[in-house]
Amino acid sequence: MQLAALLVRRGCSQSSAAAEASAVLKVRPERSPRERILTLESMNPQVKAVEYAVRGPIVLKAGEIELELQRGIKKPFTEVIRANIGDAQAMGQQPITFIRQVMALCTYPNLLNSPSFPEDAKKRARRILQACGGNSLGSYSASQGVNCIREDVAAYITRRDGGVPAEPDNIYLTTGASDGISTILKILVSGGGKSRTGVMIPIPQYPLYSAVISELGAVQVNYYLDEDNCWALNVNELRRAVREAKDHCDPKVLCIINPGNPTGQVQSRKCIEDVIHFAWEEKLFLLADEVYQDNVYSLDCRFHSFKKVLYEMGPEYSNNVELASFHSTSKGYMGECGYRGGYMEVINLHPEIKGQLVKLLSVRLCPPVSGQAAMDIVVNPPVQGEESFEQFSKEKESVLGNLATKAKLTEDLFNQVPGIHCNPLQGAMYAFPRIFIPAKAVEAAQAHKMAPDMFYCMKLLEETGICVVPGSGFGQREGTFHFRMTILPPVEKLKTVLEKVKDFHIKFLEKYA
Amino acid sequence: MQLAALLVRRGCSQSSAAAEASAVLKVRPERSPRERILTLESMNPQVKAVEYAVRGPIVLKAGEIELELQRGIKKPFTEVIRANIGDAQAMGQQPITFIRQVMALCTYPNLLNSPSFPEDAKKRARRILQACGGNSLGSYSASQGVNCIREDVAAYITRRDGGVPAEPDNIYLTTGASDGISTILKILVSGGGKSRTGVMIPIPQYPLYSAVISELGAVQVNYYLDEDNCWALNVNELRRAVREAKDHCDPKVLCIINPGNPTGQVQSRKCIEDVIHFAWEEKLFLLADEVYQDNVYSLDCRFHSFKKVLYEMGPEYSNNVELASFHSTSKGYMGECGYRGGYMEVINLHPEIKGQLVKLLSVRLCPPVSGQAAMDIVVNPPVQGEESFEQFSKEKESVLGNLATKAKLTEDLFNQVPGIHCNPLQGAMYAFPRIFIPAKAVEAAQAHKMAPDMFYCMKLLEETGICVVPGSGFGQREGTFHFRMTILPPVEKLKTVLEKVKDFHIKFLEKYA
Repeated sequence: MQLAALLVRRGCSQSSAAAEASAVLKVRPERSPRERILTLESMNPQVKAVEYAVRGPIVLKAGEIELELQRGIKKPFTEVIRANIGDAQAMGQQPITFIRQVMALCTYPNLLNSPSFPEDAKKRARRILQACGGNSLGSYSASQGVNCIREDVAAYITRRDGGVPAEPDNIYLTTGASDGISTILKILVSGGGKSRTGVMIPIPQYPLYSAVISELGAVQVNYYLDEDNCWALNVNELRRAVREAKDHCDPKVLCIINPGNPTGQVQSRKCIEDVIHFAWEEKLFLLADEVYQDNVYSLDCRFHSFKKVLYEMGPEYSNNVELASFHSTSKGYMGECGYRGGYMEVINLHPEIKGQLVKLLSVRLCPPVSGQAAMDIVVNPPVQGEESFEQFSKEKESVLGNLATKAKLTEDLFNQVPGIHCNPLQGAMYAFPRIFIPAKAVEAAQAHKMAPDMFYCMKLLEETGICVVPGSGFGQREGTFHFRMTILPPVEKLKTVLEKVKDFHIKFLEKYA
Repeated sequence: MQLAALLVRRGCSQSSAAAEASAVLKVRPERSPRERILTLESMNPQVKAVEYAVRGPIVLKAGEIELELQRGIKKPFTEVIRANIGDAQAMGQQPITFIRQVMALCTYPNLLNSPSFPEDAKKRARRILQACGGNSLGSYSASQGVNCIREDVAAYITRRDGGVPAEPDNIYLTTGASDGISTILKILVSGGGKSRTGVMIPIPQYPLYSAVISELGAVQVNYYLDEDNCWALNVNELRRAVREAKDHCDPKVLCIINPGNPTGQVQSRKCIEDVIHFAWEEKLFLLADEVYQDNVYSLDCRFHSFKKVLYEMGPEYSNNVELASFHSTSKGYMGECGYRGGYMEVINLHPEIKGQLVKLLSVRLCPPVSGQAAMDIVVNPPVQGEESFEQFSKEKESVLGNLATKAKLTEDLFNQVPGIHCNPLQGAMYAFPRIFIPAKAVEAAQAHKMAPDMFYCMKLLEETGICVVPGSGFGQREGTFHFRMTILPPVEKLKTVLEKVKDFHIKFLEKYA
């Protein structure tokens, strides 16, 4: 991971240095620049420690290769396939028509008079606009988000959780889920030395967590998911992790990603109960990252929200366990990443802390109102009897059905390759296969000062144009290697990608045998 | 200010406590909640120290009064006028048609076939979409922002600065200007004890600065603007501030707001040169908050960008002084606050720090792509010869002309009131008049445990429905009192507002004589 950070720096400094040099030439310097104030040595050391693999060195390299292809430089492939990030529409997924219709109506209300837009879309646009200052998406909203959108989110959660009540006052609209997660962690982190806040995260994890923990100077407490058991979360492992952590920090937060990213497992109801009981016992604040709640593919799995299970466990838990859960417009069937919409629901938050949260959020004024509107349509879609219901349902089912097909396809194909093992993709939108890397390849990687899986992924990129993220960017058990690949390319393209990975892997094994 | 923070907490806890109580009732608790993990005592103390007056207790009170009016409770007024925040469209300003047309086309590309949209809007929408992954606003962009939009921003800066070159590589698109300012400060802050980073900010200031400084645990170093000299910045005062600061911190950053917020002054070219020379001498990293660059009203004032003056001062400065400057879609003539668009331009940033900046930005994936698109249209508006040029220019000039009228009107009217003195509103969109508060009113405020200007503003709100922000939220010289009021209400309404403030003030003076 330190290597990764080094590569980030090197990758960037090359292109920046060129721009720098050209800027310098234009003003004809009389002397060379004096020492800078802001340098790697003087900068915030916590920010320096941040790492974020999903957009790390491998992605910078992918960008360089794309530029080379544009310049006509010949490669063994004609395009770079960015399977590194869950960016559905970039991979060709079409936006849900209804969402974009409502958004267009909100953006340019003249269209409310156009006969080409359906009445149910207009109804929603009018409702959103009426709740905005000056009836415009261009006004700031309340710091916590537009009131009626928070009401719609609460109604959605109540429906989703079979009647377990949700209060609009507990809903905070956010700039994507990442914003909510980092905001609540920012409030939670305190202390120095042995009383620094410990934040428990799964390994493998989504690297937002490790990045925010670094930035805040908190202590990362790893608990390992059980790869041999479909990446299940085992409460005994949570116990081990918290016990060991107590020697050097104050474990105060437990982060769960369900369905898992990058591991795709869907937690059973029993497992969630166990986790909640553990959080109750150990006095941990629960963070439930549920952005893939619509992305469940295995027929024997179902999404259960932490909120619902918490309530069903009775008042001993539901009045006591502090929980923040997160959702987003970026994943699911809609894949509206660019709008940066999301929400956070908090349970049992101390009233004084709610005041602190609103105060902190007010400094950045409000989440993008267009993203809030997108979130509204996701939680308040067309219902049976409405004009757009049929088309909406067809589009939604088509996306989710395709993802389910691709999840199975990916698992099956990877497991046919010698030296690759892939757990079932129960949910989310990634495969995280384990790959065997021969000793000679490990040596070659060391010679290049790279983690072995970074070396593997760089070779894959250079030889096939396929961009995936090394497992070391997410964390993995010592001595094991993985990569994360999205299943977002269209089916036929995904098949080609999988075949290419297979061929590459076999050749890689031969080369370093 | 501590009082203000107390009020924030009290204001929020009341409504939250009610929601909490109702949630608790629904699950029929068997016992009362146990102690919370996250409390005022256990939370991040740096976040606890954050204050943000623009959305503070006075705004919470305004919300309560609005609810009372809705419930039919009689007041001496029929509506609350939110003159506390620079939120143009909430005050009835219409969006610029061209901006919204391009945004609607980008949102719902089917409209590209519609004859009701002009060709120049379609051209821009096609260009933006072609630069987006999958030709969709729904994809993530590069962390630094969409490439072609950064090119357009660089071209805009070059035009604005009469040919001084700007490089797309130095442009970072942001989620409003606030995001850029807090990101660069986050990287800059380091050290502990006497070597903690000192950040110099004007007093009065826009409270984003003090909030971010608190959150990061940096040291706020105040320099006072000269109220007797139209809020001018005096370099001798910078010298005093930095000299005194060196006793207890390491002053490393100098923040400038030009045109000023809340003070509305526009810096002269000479003053900017002096500031740059001072930053060069004292080895300070310069932050130039230039979000009001289009909002200059006094005929004897002109906006000069720090970037331009820096280049014109020659290579000794332009190759050495590190500068980050900020712009936004939220102010100017467009007032598109809700889209959270903005950019930051950096000059002389160390190449390694550029890598660190991109890494840090990549953790939050990307700024809202809709906000990036809005920024693009602001920097790439219709030009002479294009179909929309005339309407665009008319709309733009109408907004700016109106603001100039209102700036003069406000200054003149305030200065007719005994006990109010108001400097010329050279730019931005606020008046920050000095108010005389009689000794008896100061005593009454103390009895209510309020800052005197908070007491004044609360009374103004309760008696007239006009919501303004007390000067103590921005900082002011000990013993002086002010408030900040936007000049955004439509002309006739603004006249009424000013008359009401005048009547209130005269009665207030009489009451506490």
